[in-house]
This record gives sequence, structure tokens and C-alpha cells, in this order.
Amino acid sequence: MAGNTFGELFRVTTWGESHGTAVGATIDGCPPGVALTAENIQKDMDRRRPGTGGPAASPRKEPDRVEILSGIFEGRTTGTPISLIIYNQDAHSKSYDHLKDIFRPGHGDITYLRKYGIRDHRGGGRASARETAARVAAGAVAKKVLILQEIRVTAYTVALGGIEVKKRDLGEIEQNRLFCPDNETASLMEARVMEVRKQGDTLGGIVEIIATGCPAGLGEPVFDKLDGELARALMSIGAVKGVEIGAGFEAARMTGSENNDRILPDGFGSNNAGGILAGISSGQEIVARVAVKPIPSIGREQETIDLDHKPVKIMVGGRHDISAIPRIIPVCEAMVALTLVDHLLRQKAIK
Amino acid sequence: MAGNTFGELFRVTTWGESHGTAVGATIDGCPPGVALTAENIQKDMDRRRPGTGGPAASPRKEPDRVEILSGIFEGRTTGTPISLIIYNQDAHSKSYDHLKDIFRPGHGDITYLRKYGIRDHRGGGRASARETAARVAAGAVAKKVLILQEIRVTAYTVALGGIEVKKRDLGEIEQNRLFCPDNETASLMEARVMEVRKQGDTLGGIVEIIATGCPAGLGEPVFDKLDGELARALMSIGAVKGVEIGAGFEAARMTGSENNDRILPDGFGSNNAGGILAGISSGQEIVARVAVKPIPSIGREQETIDLDHKPVKIMVGGRHDISAIPRIIPVCEAMVALTLVDHLLRQKAIK
Amino acid sequence: MAGNTFGELFRVTTWGESHGTAVGATIDGCPPGVALTAENIQKDMDRRRPGTGGPAASPRKEPDRVEILSGIFEGRTTGTPISLIIYNQDAHSKSYDHLKDIFRPGHGDITYLRKYGIRDHRGGGRASARETAARVAAGAVAKKVLILQEIRVTAYTVALGGIEVKKRDLGEIEQNRLFCPDNETASLMEARVMEVRKQGDTLGGIVEIIATGCPAGLGEPVFDKLDGELARALMSIGAVKGVEIGAGFEAARMTGSENNDRILPDGFGSNNAGGILAGISSGQEIVARVAVKPIPSIGREQETIDLDHKPVKIMVGGRHDISAIPRIIPVCEAMVALTLVDHLLRQKAIK
Amino acid sequence: MAGNTFGELFRVTTWGESHGTAVGATIDGCPPGVALTAENIQKDMDRRRPGTGGPAASPRKEPDRVEILSGIFEGRTTGTPISLIIYNQDAHSKSYDHLKDIFRPGHGDITYLRKYGIRDHRGGGRASARETAARVAAGAVAKKVLILQEIRVTAYTVALGGIEVKKRDLGEIEQNRLFCPDNETASLMEARVMEVRKQGDTLGGIVEIIATGCPAGLGEPVFDKLDGELARALMSIGAVKGVEIGAGFEAARMTGSENNDRILPDGFGSNNAGGILAGISSGQEIVARVAVKPIPSIGREQETIDLDHKPVKIMVGGRHDISAIPRIIPVCEAMVALTLVDHLLRQKAIK
Repeated sequence: MAGNTFGELFRVTTWGESHGTAVGATIDGCPPGVALTAENIQKDMDRRRPGTGGPAASPRKEPDRVEILSGIFEGRTTGTPISLIIYNQDAHSKSYDHLKDIFRPGHGDITYLRKYGIRDHRGGGRASARETAARVAAGAVAKKVLILQEIRVTAYTVALGGIEVKKRDLGEIEQNRLFCPDNETASLMEARVMEVRKQGDTLGGIVEIIATGCPAGLGEPVFDKLDGELARALMSIGAVKGVEIGAGFEAARMTGSENNDRILPDGFGSNNAGGILAGISSGQEIVARVAVKPIPSIGREQETIDLDHKPVKIMVGGRHDISAIPRIIPVCEAMVALTLVDHLLRQKAIK
Repeated sequence: MAGNTFGELFRVTTWGESHGTAVGATIDGCPPGVALTAENIQKDMDRRRPGTGGPAASPRKEPDRVEILSGIFEGRTTGTPISLIIYNQDAHSKSYDHLKDIFRPGHGDITYLRKYGIRDHRGGGRASARETAARVAAGAVAKKVLILQEIRVTAYTVALGGIEVKKRDLGEIEQNRLFCPDNETASLMEARVMEVRKQGDTLGGIVEIIATGCPAGLGEPVFDKLDGELARALMSIGAVKGVEIGAGFEAARMTGSENNDRILPDGFGSNNAGGILAGISSGQEIVARVAVKPIPSIGREQETIDLDHKPVKIMVGGRHDISAIPRIIPVCEAMVALTLVDHLLRQKAIK
Repeated sequence: MAGNTFGELFRVTTWGESHGTAVGATIDGCPPGVALTAENIQKDMDRRRPGTGGPAASPRKEPDRVEILSGIFEGRTTGTPISLIIYNQDAHSKSYDHLKDIFRPGHGDITYLRKYGIRDHRGGGRASARETAARVAAGAVAKKVLILQEIRVTAYTVALGGIEVKKRDLGEIEQNRLFCPDNETASLMEARVMEVRKQGDTLGGIVEIIATGCPAGLGEPVFDKLDGELARALMSIGAVKGVEIGAGFEAARMTGSENNDRILPDGFGSNNAGGILAGISSGQEIVARVAVKPIPSIGREQETIDLDHKPVKIMVGGRHDISAIPRIIPVCEAMVALTLVDHLLRQKAIK
Repeated sequence: MAGNTFGELFRVTTWGESHGTAVGATIDGCPPGVALTAENIQKDMDRRRPGTGGPAASPRKEPDRVEILSGIFEGRTTGTPISLIIYNQDAHSKSYDHLKDIFRPGHGDITYLRKYGIRDHRGGGRASARETAARVAAGAVAKKVLILQEIRVTAYTVALGGIEVKKRDLGEIEQNRLFCPDNETASLMEARVMEVRKQGDTLGGIVEIIATGCPAGLGEPVFDKLDGELARALMSIGAVKGVEIGAGFEAARMTGSENNDRILPDGFGSNNAGGILAGISSGQEIVARVAVKPIPSIGREQETIDLDHKPVKIMVGGRHDISAIPRIIPVCEAMVALTLVDHLLRQKAIK
């Protein structure tokens, strides 16, 4: 209700501020008997970690070591809550002191203050992308549950700074620093990042997420449709401003005869539906795309106001990424994985 | 949990099948003291009603009379549940008999059967757009609550069949049958509808929804962000395949310096954020757009399979709209209104 | 959240006022494929109906005919919401006019007004026992689901007006009008009821509820323990002021060696735990008891105040029962049945 | 849903096993601006701590130092999640090795295994009373919120081992080790404890909890009544087998004219209702009582079975209390405080 909990049956609560002691997640409802170690989780943590992500990344260094504090006995989950903690280490709170009384454009500074009348200005507090470390940790647990069902979630970059991929060769995703399924386009994207970095500016892009192996029947009719749940999950990631499923906005331009996926004895003839019909998974690959806005912390002077509503010029500085891509990729995977596990449990497809 | 309930504090449960006795909604959590009559609700019902919507509409005739069965005393809400009922009248169940054992492409027939192992094949059952009559009724109650806060929700057509509006003059919305803020483009759209109708085909489009008068502070951080909640609400409408907020997918192509909205002493310099920053309303106008897929029931032969997985040809027939636009417009408004009332209550902005 | 919904996975929302058009319940989450007719439900309705219950009953006559408006197709549940409606017929609202500005002692008149600032004074509105008609209807559906699992819920009178049963012969429950498992004591209770009726007074008592056939494993650790859930469910019935499980308050006087139930190869040696250990069902019979307060509407003059806080004398009159027993008995069964079905679903013991 | 979360708007999730690394609680929904330090919480922790509680206490020593990991900025809550952690220190897991394959009578060993198919046998895992350390920590935060509303929650012993208090002088509560409002009776209770300890046996008792200063209007009608919510909250404490409100089970023996509380211009003439009418607080003192069963871990040989269903004799040993009283007292206060804060928020009595 207060917004920090995700899921109904696989319920994750995240906590912690960017510049506090730690961030963490508590998972309530993980099925018992799942083999799980901190190392399993660490792999995804490392993909999201500050300092990775190549040319687009912030120089903030966080080892982001995750510890499991509860819920595991002799290497397996017991069905009791799993508490995950990641201590903050390289928090330069001082570098935010000059922003204490100023609202950064494109950030939640102004809305948080209006909501709560108080805010932790250091690095955005809860609104910081640092919170997503806890999501990725919880998402890694979800992925362990999914893998037992042979379900795999994969996200990758399909556009950056207006440059779109020409192909989707998933084998190339791990071959470039942007997790792009098109090595050649990835090089163009990297060049664009270098160029924009020099200008003190930032870039947006599009991430596509697919889930393979999902059984038919996931999603609840009417208000808890699987596509709606995915949209909410993905839109809850700070930088995301749009979500589409299957053909998405392209479907708005099609006729019914173009858009309908024929049903053939051995499956569907196409996948404009993105694996979801009437809000329920069809057994096809689930396909979603998200629009990622450019990072609002730019290295250029901007107009804004201070607490007294007086106009001021601001230069955000700090240690920031040029684009939320590629570090947002494991976050997208985590949100889709959390949604799917929750709906597998709701469908009683796993105990 | 089972999907037929929307909202946390203004909680709406809808029920009823397309070809059953009635459809209805129960609202739990409506603030007490709100003046409310069946006539207040009827106005929105009439906009959604079959037989309206001009050239794009189905010939099914339903008076769609809503009755209030509880929760009102001497013309005002009492804070107790409001039960709304709309009896079905013109349900031609027989016309669906030939579809009993066949899955219609683009519909939930196949996914519902896979989920439940049983389905009400008459007109799609719960997956039918008829269910949205109950949403619109509940949404009309939400609008009555919003109006007391001087919040207004308006939806309109910005694209149909690939034809996009050239302007947004809200004064023109009521001047054409497509609720389009551009009369001239509306004529082109109508012509396109007539053309496609002759071909037995259907059209998709884009609806934009704006909410004016919203206070800052709505939305809960992290997972229950206002944009995420709106995305889920809108994506829960059957035909919607994509949702974007503010600049949406366009933001993915912008740089940070282009996308950031300057903060000025008397407000923001632009509204690429769509009125939501870090998931919390900023006090600006809230702007969302949805991609509406073409109606899957087309007047052409399609390939599909039957219950025995044998390939068959299907001709859906029945009484169907050419496009979900414009009848989807009050549904979009209802979902946004329901989301906003819920978050006003969560923010304790109204008792 | 607003209080009119019960359950997580088998979710019931009740609506309707004592003197409004109708009362009803919407069930979201009923498993598909369950055979269900209105007649199945009517049987329990008749046990709760005004005018039954022998000497303790109100003379209000309501046929209490339940109609199923949705969720059933060809005689079976489809997994979609089941809407149940019971029209009010014999509502003498006028007889409450003299109570419009007066708070009846022992009733919710004063607390409802303080909560909402508005109230439907006719017969208690939502706080009326008439609301329980909707619970019993929903409970009857829950029982249909339970019976498929061979789980049976039975409630009966173990004390009335201070007179306690000497034995528990369940075969005798249907042999007297008080649903008492001891015919001889039932006669004494009836005599006490007649006596108190003459005095214009009312009586309290104790109802015991048992559930047989429950599998082990129901109930969630820590906060959603099965005993806590049963306590909340039963305490939500208007007249109930206490709930105990197994040995209950008697356990407070025992030593550990007396209270512990020995575990034997073929089961437990006793059932002081009432079938629940650490909040989880053990497979034994579940046993609960509730304290039912005397009906507050008495035929005697009472001191109270009016809306202006002035002291007044009140004589409630109206058509009232002498005791909530026995009409409360199907309501107790309903609440236990609803709790058990919900937890069977949560435990994924049924799909 | 999975049981480890309490509350709707002031939402507490507890985690951690008796013999794991730590136990903790995450609070989501605490109002912003509340002054809070670890010291504020520590005071209640110390009342619940092993090694306190006088003659009835276990010799296990835990400093039970609580740390606040998030949600506080410059000494005040920010409205973001508060993460509390208490590291386990004196966990003698080895002493439970001989119980690995045996079910202790009166404990959840057998039901947890049947539910999950796996269990952490060390000290009861999640079912251990150690979990209540996290509840008390969260409850202390709730009390800080309540105190700003001038609401106070106080629990005390009214019966132990069958010995009942003769008076309720709250001034004496802090004057004896049993938190008993009757020093003289407390001495008799202590003597009884010493006697039973020698016999290797344990004792049950009754705790009363009162809340003063509650406004009228708390509690939601029908299913989320305040008395039902309190019953569930209190029954969720491991040792509790019964809950009553106001006159409770005594009301079952009264007539209506005896039980009804007269309403006078300056308040009520008595408080048989326990401060709650029709499930909603009346503004009177709220009064609840709980039946506490004797500790099941006794120092005597007991009959039970092992994993192979073979009969065995068991001697539990370990370091155990003679009675859950008095250490259960701050836990009772915590559960009532958590319930009240949640309902104050639901009633929008605090932002």
C-alpha cells in the first residue's frame, strides 16, 4: 500500500536509501526447497553494479556484495522470508550538499518534498536508482525459481540515442558492453555515447524483454491481466516512460487482418500479441519493450528553483551514467521475473 | 487477487458475463457524503453504449440502464458499499453457438480455456468488452468524487487507422462522433472506417487521456508509482497493447537536455514528464496515451483450430464494432479516474 | 481495505443495507468446475432466515430468496465472479423513524455516525444483522467447495443464558430448534428464553464450531495463522465478543504437562490445541468457540442521548430476536467455511 | 499473503529464524516527520529480552540490540521504509540436534514439516518466540506514532497458573517482575512459578491490554472490525489460544439489560463493550484479554513420534521460560499498537 512492496504471493519489499547504511529486500512467499546461495544472486548484481556498463557508466564504485540473512537452511529455501542486504560503501553524501535546497530538473526532488514535506536529499534517497540493487537481488531469487520451470527472462538493448538495432541475434548480447543483440549497431551506439558524454548530455533508448518457456494460463482476467501487471512492473523503474507488449504501438496502425495471429495446430502463425491474449499468457514467447528516458542529471547548466521558489541555475555534477542503458537491463529482467513468479504462484503452477 | 478487483482504498469489483443475466460493480471505500444519482452515472454509460459511436459501432442495442442497489441514503453516499447493476437485454447467445468449439484468433478463447479448463463461449464471457460497462459505471462514481476536488479526466482520439490528429482543440471533441480534438482529421478517419468496413476489416488507433487539477504528491514511491498504476489500469482494457506517459517512447530518442522540463517559479517550462516525476504527480497536467489494437472479430475468413487441435476456417460474423475507438474512450477515462481517486485516498488528500 | 471484503484468494465482498433494495455478495476466486445452484445456497439461507429459530426469533418475515447473477455456466462455476443477490421485502423502515436522532445502547448507531458523519438509521444500515444474509449465501458456496475436499463445518449451541450443555451428541443438533447437541439442555434453554422474553430482555450464549476433514498445513506462519484468521472471521460477526480455540481460556489455567497433546503413531492423544499448532492445522478436528452477547435491542426503557447530546429514555421496540442464537449458527459456519476455503487455496491444496 | 506481513497502511514484515544470523522487521507506511532513535525502540526490547522476566525466564542471554538501517534522516522518519535488524548472538543450535528428527508436543514442528516439507529445526525456526523480538521493535515504532496522538497501550498480567488478580492498580505494574497490577497477588504467582519450575512443568495465564486515548471511529465495518482485527493480531502470538473484548465470554451469561452500556451525556455508564461498538471504537478505553497457554517445552518426559512415525520418548531440555508471561506482555502491547496505528491511518486520523 505504501508502495515499497511488489507482488501478491511472491512478495518483495525493498528498503534503503542511496546514501544510508544499506539497501535490502525481504521476500515473503518464496517456495520452499529451492537451492539458493549468495553467489547465485551476485551474478546479476555485478551486471547492474556501478562502474560496469562501459562508456555509459558512472564512476561510483560499489562492490554490491549481497548477504542472505534468513530463509535458507542447509542451502535451500524453507518457505520463510528471505532477507537480503547490500551495504552501501562508496556514498559521497557531501557531494550532494549543494543540492540540499534546490530541485534538480527531471528528478523526484520536488515531488517527494511535496508529498512528504521532508526528504533525504542525498543522491535522491529512495528515488535513487540505487534502490534497484535490491530489486535485482530479489529478481535473481525469482529467476532461480523460474529456471526450475524452464522459464528464462532476457533483456537487451534495441535502441540507444535514436539508433535502432537492425537484427536480434541473442548470441551477440554478451559480446558487447551494451547488451545489444547486434554488435555492429552496438558500436554505433557506443560512438554516440562518447559524443554525447563530451557535450555533457545524456541519452535515452529502448530495451526489449522476452520470456521463454512460460506456460499458458498466467494472468488474471479483467484487472490483473498479465500485460497490465508487466506494464506496472516495468513502469515502476525510474527511467521508464512507456511500455508496449508484442506489436505495441505498431498495432494501432494495423488492420485486424494484419494484427491477428493465426492459430495453427502446432502454435501461432505470428506473435503480434506478444504472448498474451485477453491478459492471459498463451504459451508463446512473451515480448515487452520499454522506453527509457535520458538520465536527467546532465553536465550542463539548467534552470530551476530553490526551496523559496526563487529561480536558480544548477549544474548537477556528481558521478552519473550517460544512459540508464545498459545498467537498467538486469532491472528490467528482475521486474519481469518477479511478475512471472508471482503469477505462476497465483495460477498454482508451482507450489 | 483473482483479478476482478481494482484499487486499494476505492476498491471496485466487477462481475458478469456478456451473455449472462447482468453485469455489475461493487465499490467499497467511496467517501461518505457525495451526492450521487443513477442519472449521474447514466451519462457515461450512454457514451459507451453499443449502438453509439457512429460508423465504427456494433448494431447491438443495449439501453444499459444502471441501477444503484446500495450505499446511498437520501441522495448521498454513506461510506458503505455501492452496488451497481446493469441488466443484459439484447444478448443473442445463439449467434455464438457455431463458435463453441473454435478459438477465435486475437481473442481470449484459447487462453481462458487453458487457464480454467472451462469457459463461457457466449460472446467472450468475462473477456467481452461488455465487462467494461461495469467499469464505466464505477468510473462515473469516481468522477463525481474527483469533481469535488476540481479534477477532470478527458480522453480523446489522436490516431485512428494510422491517421493522426494535426491539432488538439479540446473544444472540438464533442463536435464529431470519434471524440477527436480535430474535426478535419475526424472526417478523414470516418472515411477510413467506411472503407475498411466494406473490406470486412477493422482498425486500431491511439487514445490520449489528460487529467487536470491533480494535486502534487499522488503516487507511492518505488512499486506503486502513479505512472505504473496508470499503465496497469489502462493496459487492463482489453484492446490496449501499449501505454506511454508524457513524451513516452519519444523520450527514448531525446537527450537529457531536450527531455528535462525546466522548473520555473510559476511552474514547469514544458511537460515531457507527463505530470509525473519519480512516480509522483507534480501538479502539472497528467498525460497518457494508449495504443488500441484493431478489433479481432473481422468479417473475413481466418485460419484457426478447434478443440481437437484440428485446423479450421472461421468467419466470426456477429455484431461487432470496426474499431474499439470511440467506445473505448469513456473506459479510458474511467480507468484513469479510478486510479486517481484511489491515490487521492492513499495520499489522504480526501477523507 | 474499506472493510467489506473477506479473504485473499476466495474473496467475498458483501453489500446492502437492512432497509435498502437488496443485500448481496460477490465472490471472486471461486475455483472453476464446481456444481452450484441457487437451491444449494437456499438451504443455509433458510436456517438463518427471520421467522425461524423458534422461540428466540424475530417475527420479521423475509423469504430470503437468493439469485445467482453471474459466474455459472451450464450449472458449474467458471472461475469468474459469482454475484449473489437477495432482495429485501419486509422492510418496515417507518418503524425506525422515532430512532432517527437517538443512539440505541449496545448498537453501532453512535460509532457509525462518529466515523462517517452520516448514517442510514433504518434498522442499523450496514451494521444490521441482515448483512449476514449475504455472508451465509457466500458461505454456502464455500461449503460446496469444501465438501469436494470432504471437509465439513458444523456449528451448534453449547450455552444459552448461562445454561451449558452436558454433552455433545451431534446427532441431536437437528432435533431441537436451538441446534443444541443436547436435547435435554435445549429444553431448559427454551424455557429460559420464554421467561426472559416476558421480561422484555435478551440472552447471550456460546456457539462451538468444528471442522472435520481439514488437511494439515493450512494457515500461514506468524501473522496469518489459522487461529488468528478464524478469530478475526468469527469476531467480525456483530454479536461476538470472544473467540477461543481448543482448550482456549481453560488452557490459561493448565500446566504444560496437562495442556500438551501427546503425539502418537496414529494421531494425537488429545485435542487441547483445537487442531492448530503454531498457527497451522495439524489434521485434527478444528475446534473454536465464540461468546455471543445478548441482543442489545431490548423491550425495556433504557437511558441514552440524542444527536444534541441530551439525555433521553428509549424503548427500542421493533421486531427483534431474544438471542442471536440460533440464527447466528449458519453465520458462524459461513465464516469458518470462508476462512478454510481461502486457506486451502493459499496452501494450493485445491486449484 | 504468505503470512509474514501485518497491517495495510502501516505494514510490517518480519523475517529471521531463532538460530539464523539475525531477525528483523521492515515497516512500510510509517508517517513522515516522527522523531525516532534506536534508543526509543530499545526500551521495549529490554522488557521482552531473554534473561529478564524474573523467575519465569529462560537463561538465554541476548543483548537484543536493535539497529535502524533506513527510513530515518536527521533523526526523523521520512515516510520511506524503516528497516530494523537485531543480530542473534547466543544461539546454541547444537542443543537442538537431538530434536532434529522428533516432533516436540505442543510445538509447530509437525505442522511446519507437513506444510513445507522442510524445516529449520533449530529452536523452532520462524515459529520460535524469538520472532517476536522483531514485532516488539516494530511495535515500539508504532507506539512513537501513537504517543503523538496521546494514545497509550498498556498490558499487564491478570492471571497466572490459575491465580487471578484481586485488583487492577496500574501504578503497581512496574513494581513487580510479572507486570501485575496487584503486588500481593504477584507474590503468590511468583511462588507458584517456583513450585512448578521444580516439577519441570510450565504455566499459562491471562494478559489484559488497554488502550487509552483512542478516538471514536477506528475500525472498518463488517469484516475489518476493530475487535476482529485485534483478535487476529493477538491470536497471531504463538501462545495465545483465546481473545475477548470488554466483558468477553462473561457477556454470554448476561442479559441485554445487564450488558448494554448506558449512553450518558458525558460518556458511557459502563464498558462491557470494551470500547468497541459494531466493530468501531467509541472513544472509550479499549479493553482486550488473551488466554496464554503454558509453554510446551517442559522438563518432563513426553510421548511423541519421530520422522518415521515411530513412538519415542522426548525430554525437551534447552533453555526455556516457565511461562510466556511476563515476556509476552510487550508483544501484546506491540500487536495492539500496530493494529491501532494501522486503523488510525485507515481512518485518515493521521497523515
